[in-house]
Amino acid sequence: MTATHQLRKSVPAASPGRRERRRTETREKLFRVAMQLFAERGFFETTTEDITEAADVGQGTFFNYFPTKQHVLTVLSEKQMEKISHAREEAEAGKASIHDVLHGLMHRIAQEPGKSQALTRSLMTAFLSNDEVRQFVRNTMARGRENLGEIIKLGQKRGEIRRDRKPADLAMTFQRNTIGTLLLWAMQSEDDLDAWIEKTFYDFWSAAESR
Amino acid sequence: MTATHQLRKSVPAASPGRRERRRTETREKLFRVAMQLFAERGFFETTTEDITEAADVGQGTFFNYFPTKQHVLTVLSEKQMEKISHAREEAEAGKASIHDVLHGLMHRIAQEPGKSQALTRSLMTAFLSNDEVRQFVRNTMARGRENLGEIIKLGQKRGEIRRDRKPADLAMTFQRNTIGTLLLWAMQSEDDLDAWIEKTFYDFWSAAESR
Repeated sequence: MTATHQLRKSVPAASPGRRERRRTETREKLFRVAMQLFAERGFFETTTEDITEAADVGQGTFFNYFPTKQHVLTVLSEKQMEKISHAREEAEAGKASIHDVLHGLMHRIAQEPGKSQALTRSLMTAFLSNDEVRQFVRNTMARGRENLGEIIKLGQKRGEIRRDRKPADLAMTFQRNTIGTLLLWAMQSEDDLDAWIEKTFYDFWSAAESR
Repeated sequence: MTATHQLRKSVPAASPGRRERRRTETREKLFRVAMQLFAERGFFETTTEDITEAADVGQGTFFNYFPTKQHVLTVLSEKQMEKISHAREEAEAGKASIHDVLHGLMHRIAQEPGKSQALTRSLMTAFLSNDEVRQFVRNTMARGRENLGEIIKLGQKRGEIRRDRKPADLAMTFQRNTIGTLLLWAMQSEDDLDAWIEKTFYDFWSAAESR
């Protein structure tokens, strides 16, 4: 412990690696705190001052990381993208069936916005109403479909997924079902999102499986 | 023509039927004009004064029909409901296959919000952000699923739709796919919604058809 502490101390304060790590930490903290506040108060009702205060950083700090409040949502979009990349690696490793890889992925994608219905509504409202964020989310989703397409190709190769459908189309099927579920679920007063996703995945798989 | 004119004249001005008809006409006009303006300027950027001015009625008139601007959306929700009721009658008449009834219905449901991507985004933002409207839309969609469920039951009876799925679940599949398509389409810069719906219906049917 002491050794580590001393080791840390010996790294120059301006070390690019350390600075980068701190930046990532602060960005992550601002994201977490913002999501929490969006869930509690709503996206439009939360100010950047609320976020910096709750994250215990200076007021101006926020704008070192995000040009606007809406841009916090781009972090969520990146996180979802990482889950898809991870699923692709899992599929390529070949230990799990493609069914199980995609099933786990759909649940994991629903996890973050699915923390509360108010949060999902806030997030959707925010990205629908801001052109720049929508463009970012759209591009990220397109990259996500490329990775989903690769997973689906593997499924076709292994005989799990029907070969008469384009991987890109089935990737869209996956996204459409997931986002449609989130939207319908977010309109309800209270309900278990995982149970919804379970039915949705069953439908997705019915459309995708080999027959 | 003259006879009809005289006949109309002989009806007392305060006739409940006529008053009701006029109310329906004015409500419909306010709806059409509002949708046009939402598509052109966005939901939040359109004021009730903009709507009454474009509809050529007195400023206060708006509130005789809708408590708030958001409530205009309840008319859209009713219209979608009517399309589903109509499809149910079509299915019960037994002249068209259930495949064709549901295929036509999905395209017709996409028609109204599908007039422009900006309109769809406006509509979704508005109903996500207003509790009362969201509750209304949610209840209307639930009634819609009841009618969809009846159409699906007929499909199961006639051997077109698989019998191992609950009609209510497949009704949800239909709505989830339709609303998911609208949301994803509304995020694009420009694209043909009917082509999107065509692929979506193919997926829906893959999940629903008898095998």
